Amino acid sequence: MKSDIDHLERSLQNFNIGGPTERMPEPLIKAFGIVKKAAATVNMSYGLDKTIGNAIVQAADEVIEGKLLDHFPLVVWQTGSGTQTNMNVNEVIANRAIEILGGQLGSKKPVHPNDHVNMGQSSNDTFPTAMHVSASIEVNKRLIPALTHLHDAIFEKSKSFTNIIKIGRTHLQDATPLTLGNEFSGYAQQLEFGIERIKATISRLYYLAQGGTAVGTGLNTPPGFDVKIAAEISKITGLPFQTAPNKFEALAAHDAIVEVSGALNVVSVSIMKIANDIRFLGSGPRCGFGEISLPENEPGSSIMPGKVNPTQCEAITMVAAQVMGNNTTITISGSNGHFELNVFKPVLIKNLLHSIRILSDASESFTKNCIVGIKANEKRINDIMNQSLMLVTALNPHIGYDKAASVAKKAHKENLTLKEAAIQLGVLTENQFDEWVRPEKMLGPKL
Amino acid sequence: MKSDIDHLERSLQNFNIGGPTERMPEPLIKAFGIVKKAAATVNMSYGLDKTIGNAIVQAADEVIEGKLLDHFPLVVWQTGSGTQTNMNVNEVIANRAIEILGGQLGSKKPVHPNDHVNMGQSSNDTFPTAMHVSASIEVNKRLIPALTHLHDAIFEKSKSFTNIIKIGRTHLQDATPLTLGNEFSGYAQQLEFGIERIKATISRLYYLAQGGTAVGTGLNTPPGFDVKIAAEISKITGLPFQTAPNKFEALAAHDAIVEVSGALNVVSVSIMKIANDIRFLGSGPRCGFGEISLPENEPGSSIMPGKVNPTQCEAITMVAAQVMGNNTTITISGSNGHFELNVFKPVLIKNLLHSIRILSDASESFTKNCIVGIKANEKRINDIMNQSLMLVTALNPHIGYDKAASVAKKAHKENLTLKEAAIQLGVLTENQFDEWVRPEKMLGPKL
Amino acid sequence: MKSDIDHLERSLQNFNIGGPTERMPEPLIKAFGIVKKAAATVNMSYGLDKTIGNAIVQAADEVIEGKLLDHFPLVVWQTGSGTQTNMNVNEVIANRAIEILGGQLGSKKPVHPNDHVNMGQSSNDTFPTAMHVSASIEVNKRLIPALTHLHDAIFEKSKSFTNIIKIGRTHLQDATPLTLGNEFSGYAQQLEFGIERIKATISRLYYLAQGGTAVGTGLNTPPGFDVKIAAEISKITGLPFQTAPNKFEALAAHDAIVEVSGALNVVSVSIMKIANDIRFLGSGPRCGFGEISLPENEPGSSIMPGKVNPTQCEAITMVAAQVMGNNTTITISGSNGHFELNVFKPVLIKNLLHSIRILSDASESFTKNCIVGIKANEKRINDIMNQSLMLVTALNPHIGYDKAASVAKKAHKENLTLKEAAIQLGVLTENQFDEWVRPEKMLGPKL
Amino acid sequence: MKSDIDHLERSLQNFNIGGPTERMPEPLIKAFGIVKKAAATVNMSYGLDKTIGNAIVQAADEVIEGKLLDHFPLVVWQTGSGTQTNMNVNEVIANRAIEILGGQLGSKKPVHPNDHVNMGQSSNDTFPTAMHVSASIEVNKRLIPALTHLHDAIFEKSKSFTNIIKIGRTHLQDATPLTLGNEFSGYAQQLEFGIERIKATISRLYYLAQGGTAVGTGLNTPPGFDVKIAAEISKITGLPFQTAPNKFEALAAHDAIVEVSGALNVVSVSIMKIANDIRFLGSGPRCGFGEISLPENEPGSSIMPGKVNPTQCEAITMVAAQVMGNNTTITISGSNGHFELNVFKPVLIKNLLHSIRILSDASESFTKNCIVGIKANEKRINDIMNQSLMLVTALNPHIGYDKAASVAKKAHKENLTLKEAAIQLGVLTENQFDEWVRPEKMLGPKL
Repeated sequence: MKSDIDHLERSLQNFNIGGPTERMPEPLIKAFGIVKKAAATVNMSYGLDKTIGNAIVQAADEVIEGKLLDHFPLVVWQTGSGTQTNMNVNEVIANRAIEILGGQLGSKKPVHPNDHVNMGQSSNDTFPTAMHVSASIEVNKRLIPALTHLHDAIFEKSKSFTNIIKIGRTHLQDATPLTLGNEFSGYAQQLEFGIERIKATISRLYYLAQGGTAVGTGLNTPPGFDVKIAAEISKITGLPFQTAPNKFEALAAHDAIVEVSGALNVVSVSIMKIANDIRFLGSGPRCGFGEISLPENEPGSSIMPGKVNPTQCEAITMVAAQVMGNNTTITISGSNGHFELNVFKPVLIKNLLHSIRILSDASESFTKNCIVGIKANEKRINDIMNQSLMLVTALNPHIGYDKAASVAKKAHKENLTLKEAAIQLGVLTENQFDEWVRPEKMLGPKL
Repeated sequence: MKSDIDHLERSLQNFNIGGPTERMPEPLIKAFGIVKKAAATVNMSYGLDKTIGNAIVQAADEVIEGKLLDHFPLVVWQTGSGTQTNMNVNEVIANRAIEILGGQLGSKKPVHPNDHVNMGQSSNDTFPTAMHVSASIEVNKRLIPALTHLHDAIFEKSKSFTNIIKIGRTHLQDATPLTLGNEFSGYAQQLEFGIERIKATISRLYYLAQGGTAVGTGLNTPPGFDVKIAAEISKITGLPFQTAPNKFEALAAHDAIVEVSGALNVVSVSIMKIANDIRFLGSGPRCGFGEISLPENEPGSSIMPGKVNPTQCEAITMVAAQVMGNNTTITISGSNGHFELNVFKPVLIKNLLHSIRILSDASESFTKNCIVGIKANEKRINDIMNQSLMLVTALNPHIGYDKAASVAKKAHKENLTLKEAAIQLGVLTENQFDEWVRPEKMLGPKL
Repeated sequence: MKSDIDHLERSLQNFNIGGPTERMPEPLIKAFGIVKKAAATVNMSYGLDKTIGNAIVQAADEVIEGKLLDHFPLVVWQTGSGTQTNMNVNEVIANRAIEILGGQLGSKKPVHPNDHVNMGQSSNDTFPTAMHVSASIEVNKRLIPALTHLHDAIFEKSKSFTNIIKIGRTHLQDATPLTLGNEFSGYAQQLEFGIERIKATISRLYYLAQGGTAVGTGLNTPPGFDVKIAAEISKITGLPFQTAPNKFEALAAHDAIVEVSGALNVVSVSIMKIANDIRFLGSGPRCGFGEISLPENEPGSSIMPGKVNPTQCEAITMVAAQVMGNNTTITISGSNGHFELNVFKPVLIKNLLHSIRILSDASESFTKNCIVGIKANEKRINDIMNQSLMLVTALNPHIGYDKAASVAKKAHKENLTLKEAAIQLGVLTENQFDEWVRPEKMLGPKL
Repeated sequence: MKSDIDHLERSLQNFNIGGPTERMPEPLIKAFGIVKKAAATVNMSYGLDKTIGNAIVQAADEVIEGKLLDHFPLVVWQTGSGTQTNMNVNEVIANRAIEILGGQLGSKKPVHPNDHVNMGQSSNDTFPTAMHVSASIEVNKRLIPALTHLHDAIFEKSKSFTNIIKIGRTHLQDATPLTLGNEFSGYAQQLEFGIERIKATISRLYYLAQGGTAVGTGLNTPPGFDVKIAAEISKITGLPFQTAPNKFEALAAHDAIVEVSGALNVVSVSIMKIANDIRFLGSGPRCGFGEISLPENEPGSSIMPGKVNPTQCEAITMVAAQVMGNNTTITISGSNGHFELNVFKPVLIKNLLHSIRILSDASESFTKNCIVGIKANEKRINDIMNQSLMLVTALNPHIGYDKAASVAKKAHKENLTLKEAAIQLGVLTENQFDEWVRPEKMLGPKL
C-alpha cells in the first residue's frame, strides 16, 4: 500500500457499489467535522500543539460548513464500521490544515491524519458519535420544526372547521355526526403525540460513544477525554450531548438509532392515516365523498384535462411507506452486531438520516401545498349528512335500541327518510322527531 | 437425566413460554408422522425387523390421523432445530408401537425411540423434512383450493357485471368510465397470478432434507436412503417430493420457506387491495361511494342500529397484515442461520403454517360470506357516472387536449354539465356532444 | 336474525378462521371485565339501578378472575372494531348477572346486555380501552419484571466477571482487550435502556378512549363520564390511567399501540445481539470461541451424544424474530385506519399482547435457564488473549502507528509472537515490550 | 398556469423533497425512452406523420443512451402515478425532436408533447410500462450476471476445497465432520436456487400495461395498439415482453413488482447467511475460528495496525439488510392501491431498482474482492477437527447411542481425547477406535 491518500481510491475501487446517490450522507460528514473540531480542541487542552490544533479546527469548520463535500465521494456500502470514511475525514482535514499552514499536500506534515486529526480516537467511536450528532441535529433542526408546522396548520384548520357538522364514518359506513373540526383535531393530536414520541427517544441519542476508542475501554485516551469531548460537542451544537454511560454498549449496539427510527415509524403510521383520510374526503369532484377540496397545484393527468389530484397526499404517503421500510432495514441492521462492534453503522445512519430528511421535507411540502389550502365544501357536507340514516342513534335514549334499529332498517329498505319511517312505524310523532334528531345536539355528552 | 420420557417434562419446564396457543402446529406433527412412517418403511427395506417396522408404521399412521395430538404439548419456543419435538415424536411413536406389540410403556423395548423410530435420521434432517411436507400439504390441500374459490367467485361476479358501466377512479378522482365487470376482472387477474406465484415457488418446497442427518453428509444412513425416503413420502402424500440436490443447503438454510412466504406476501398485498376497494365501493349507505352492497351478515354496531359493516373485508385485511408481518419474521429467521444448521426452524414453520391457514380460511370466509353476495347498485352507479366531468376525455380526439381541458374546468367551476360548458365555450354543437360523449363508447380502443 | 345470544354462533360461523389458537387473548377478555365493572360503577353514580349495577360488577369480577374464559370462543379475525367480542362480553356478563339475580338466562331481564352492561358505551370506545388496559397491565405485571430479572442477572454476571481480561473482537477480528465484565456490562446497559424505552412509551398507553362512544363525540354519555370511568379503571388496576385528551384520535388511530410495539422491537434487537454473542462466546466445546460455558439443560442431539446446545439462546432469538415481525403487522395495521375508526383493532392487540407475553416468558426462561448458569472458561480466555496480535496497539503511543503496524504484520506473516517480531525489527527492547504490552494496563484511559 | 415547460419548475417547487439523490432512477428514465420510441414507431404504423415520428424516435434514442439525463431533475416524491415524470419525458423528447427538425424550443411545434409524443398513451400506462421495462433490463443485464458470477466463484471454491475435511458445526457447537467443499457447495446451491427464483418471477414482469391508457380500458388507442407496442418494446430490448392480459390489474396493482422484490428478499437472506458464515470462518487471526483467510484489501483500523477486516462481507450484508427493508416498503406500497390506479408507483420502482442495483454491484464486489481470494487454513482446520469430541458419532453404529454419549461426556469433563475416554470406559479397544473413528469415512452414507 502506498500513501494514505490512496485509502480513498482503494475504497472507491473495492466498493464500487451503487454510484454517487449512495454516498455518505451530508449531515454525517458535517457531524464528522464537529467531532474532529471538538477532538482537536480537547486534545489541545491535553497538550496537542496549538498551531496544529487550531489548523485542524479551522479545517474542520470548513467541513461543518459543507465547503469540502466534494472530497467525500465514498459510498455507504463499505466497511461496516465506517472506517474508510473516518480515514477520509482525517485525510481531508489533515490536508486542508497542512494547506492552511503552508505545507505540502499529502506529506502528512506538519499535520498527520492519524497522529493528530484522529488523536485519541478510533473509527469505532468517532463514527457512532457522528451518527448520534448528525441525527440529533437533523431531528432538532429539521424534523421537529417540520412536524410542528404540519401540526400547527392542521390545528388551525380544525379550529376553522369547528362549526361544520358532518357525517361520521366508522367501518367506512355512515355513523353519527361530528364536526369537521373534530376530525382535524384528531389528526392534530396524532402529530402532537408524534412530536412527543420523537422527543421521548432523543434523550438516548444524546449519549456519545466518543472516548470508547476501539472496543469501548477508552484505551489511548487520557482520563476525562470522553466527558470533555461530549461537553465540547454540546457547546458547538447547542444540544445537550453527554458521554455515554457505557461505551461497550455504545459501540456494540445501536439501539438508540433503532429507537428513534421506531418513533419515525409511528409518525409515518399517523401520516399515512391522515393523508389517506384527506384524499378520500377530497375524492370527487362529483363521484366521491367530496367533503373537502384540495388546492390545485398542477394539472393532474396528461389525458384527462381538468382533473386535479391529491398529489401532496401521494408524495407524503410514499414517504411514509419508505420510512416504514427503512425501519425494517434499521431493525435488521441493529440486531446483527457481534461482540464489541456493530458493523452495520453506515446503513443504519443512511437510513435514519434518509427517513428524517424525507419526512421533514414532505411534511413541509404537505403543509404548504396541501393543508393550508384545504377548503370545506359545506353544502355537500350538509346535504349528505341530512340524508344519513345514522342520525337514528339519537333516538336510542328515547325509544330504545331495538325500535331505533327498526326505524333505520325500514328507511333503508324502503328508501324513506328516517322521519317518514319512524312515523309510519308509530314509534314517535313528527314533533318528537324534530326535537330529538338534531345533529347539532349529537356532538357530545349530555344529561 | 432419567428416562427418555422426561425429555418432554424437561422441555416444558425449560421452555415455559407462551402457553398452549404456542404449541407446534398440528400440520407439522402430522407431517412428522408421515416422515416416521416413510422412514420405517424404508428402514425395513434395509433390514429393520418387520415386526418393529410395521408397529412403527401403524403408530405413525395414528399420528398422521391426528389421534395422538394430545401427546405433543411442546411449544415452538424451544431449541431452534426442533430436536425436542423430534424426540417427542420418536417417544410417542415408540411407546404406541410398544403398546401395539404388548410391551411396557417407557421400557424402550422392543421399540427404541432412537435406535428404531429415529433410525437413519437426525432432528436436523427430519425437522426440515416435516417443515416442507407440512407446508406442501397445506398449500395444496388448503390454500390453493381456497384461493381458487375466491378467484372463481370474483371471476363470476366480473362476468355478471359486464354491462354495468361506471365511473373510473384514478388518484381517487373521477376518471374515464369502465365497467364494474372490468374492475372485478382486475381482482380476478390478481388472484390468478397469485395462484401462479405460489405454484412457482413450491417446486423448491418439494425438495426434502431427509438423508442429510446431522450436518448434511448423510452419515449413518445407508446409500440411497435419501432417494428412497423421498419417494416413499411422495407415495404417501401424492405430492412430487424428491430428495434435495444439496443436503448442506437443506439443513443450513430455509430459503424455500422464505420464498413461499414471499409468495403469500404478494397474495396478501393483492387481497389488501381488493378488500379495500370492495369496502370503499360499498361505503354508505347514503354518504359514501355506494356502488355495491355487501351482504348483511350480522348487526354491525351495539349503538348504531341498522348499520351493516364490511366485516368480512375487515377480517381478511387483518389477515393480510398478519401475513405481511409473518413474512418479516420469516425473513429475519431465514437470514440468521449459521454454519451447518439454521436454528430458527420452529419459528419459521409456525409462521408459514399460520400464514397459510389464516389466508386459506379467510379466503373461504370472504368468498362465501362476502363476494358471492355482492350486489351492484345500478341506479346509483349510473347516476353518479353521468354527473362526472371526466367524460370530457372523449372529446380529446375531436377538439384537442387543451380545449377539452377548458370545457372540464368551466363545468367544474360553474357547476355546469359538460354539455352546457362545451356549448357555451362554442367548441362543439349539442349534436356533436351527444354523438361523441357516450360512456358505452369509451370502454375500449377504437379507430 | 333471532335472539341476541345468536351473535356468538353467527360470528363463529361467519368467521371460521384459524381455529382455537386464534381466540381473543385472555388479557384482553380480562381487561374487558375491568371496563365493564368500571362502567357499571360509574353508571350507578349516574342513576343505574343498584341491584342491576352490582350484579354486573360481580359478574365482571368473574371475568377479571378468568372464571368465564370458556364463554369467549371468538377469534380475532372478526370485525375490525371488535364489536362481536364486545357483544360477547355484554351477553356473558348480562347472563351471569341475570343468573346471580335469579332470572332466566337469555331473557335479557332484568339485565340487558346493551341497555345495562353496555350503557354509555360503544364497541368503538370499549374495545380500544380494553386494548390499552390489557397492554398496560401486561407490560407492568409481566414484561418489566421479566426484563428487570434479565437485566439484574446479567448485571450480576458482569460484576462477577470484572477481573477476567479477554480479547476484544471488532469486525469479528481480534482487537484490544477488555474484561468479560465489560462485555456483560454492555448487555446490561442495553436492557436498562430497554426498560427505560418501554416506560417512555407507556405514558400514552394510559390514555383511555372510553367515553368517546361511536365516533369520538361522546354521544349518549352523560357529561364527565369519560373522566370518571378512567378514574375508576385506574382505581381497579392501580395504574395511572386517564381519559384521552382527544377521543377522535383514540378511536381512529392506534399510534400508542404502534409506539409500544416499537419499543418492544428495540428490546428484541438488543436481545438478538446479546443472545447471539452468548452463543458464539460459548461455541465449542473445542472448535469454537469457547470463552464461556452455558448450563446443560437437556441433551442436544438425537444423533450426537454429549453435545450441549445453546437452546435458551435459540428460543429467545426466535422470540425476538417474532416480535420484529409482529411489529411489521402492527405498523401496517396501525396505518390503515379510515375516518373515525381504525378497524384493525383485534389484530393490533393480538400481536402486541403476543409480543409482550413471549418476550416476558422467554426473558424469564433465558435468565433462569441460561444467564445465571453461565461460567467463564478462564484458562481458555487467558490462553487465546495472550496469543493475540492486537496487543500491539499498546505500542502506538511508544513507537507510533506505522511501526506498530509493521510489528503486527511481521508476527502475523511469520507466525511469531509480537515480542519476537518487535525485537527482530529493532523497534524496542524486550524489557520495553514487557513493560508496555500488559493487557491489564490496556483496559482504560491513561495519561 | 403558463406554458407546459413550466410543469418541471412547478413540480420541483411543489415537491422539494430530499434533494438530488432522490431523483427518478436512471434506468427508469432510459426505459421511458424505450417506451416513447416504441410508441412513435407504432403510431407511425397508425398514421402519425413520419417526419414527426422519426424525430421522436431519434430523440428517444438519445434518452435511451443517457445523453439527456440532466433534463430529468424530478424526484420520486411527486404524484404517485409518476405523471410529472411522464410529462417531463414528453417535453424533453418533444423539444429535442423540435430541435432536430429545426423548430423553436418550447413552441410545441411541429412536435407536441401531448398530441405526438404521448399519443395513444397516458401516464397511467406509460409509467408502469417503464417500471416493468427498466426492472426487466436491470434484472437481466445486471443482476443475473452478477449473481451468476458470485455463484460460479463460490462453486469453484467448493470444488477446490473438496478434500479439506473439517469440523461441522450445528447450534454453533462442534458436530460431525464434512468438507470445506461441502460447506461452499451449500452456498452455491443457495445462489443457484436464488437465480432460479428470480427467473421464476420475471415472467410476470414481462407483461406490459401499455395500451391501457387512463383506467385500463384502452380508451383513445386504436385497436391492436397494446399488442403492437409490446412487440416493438420486445424488439428494442431483446426481452420477451407481451401485452398484459388484463390492463385493469396492470394499472391498479403492482403485484409483479412486489413479487420480484420478494425474490430479491430471498436472495438477500441467502447472502446474509453466506457472508456471515464466511466472516465467522475467517475470524481471528488467532482468537477466532480461523478456518479460512480473506484477502487483505485495505488496512482495517485507524488504531489497530495489522488488522484485516471482512469488509466485503460487511458491505454485502448491509446491502442485504437494505434489500429486506426495501421489500417492506414495496409490500406496503403495493398494498395501498385504490380503484383503478395504484399511486405508489415511483416509490415502488425506486426501491426495486435500488435493490437490484446494490445487490448486483455488491455481488460483483464480493466475488472479486472476497470470494476469489479466500484461502483455506488447512493446518488450523485439521488441528481443531482432530480435537473435536463429536467424532464420537462414528461409534453409534458400533457401541450404541448411550455408550457413545458416555464416552463423549467423559472426554469432555476430564479433558481427555475420545480414544482415551473410550478405552478407560472399556467400551472398545484402541484398534477398534482407530478403525472406526476416521473423519474421512464420516463424510457420507455407507452400508
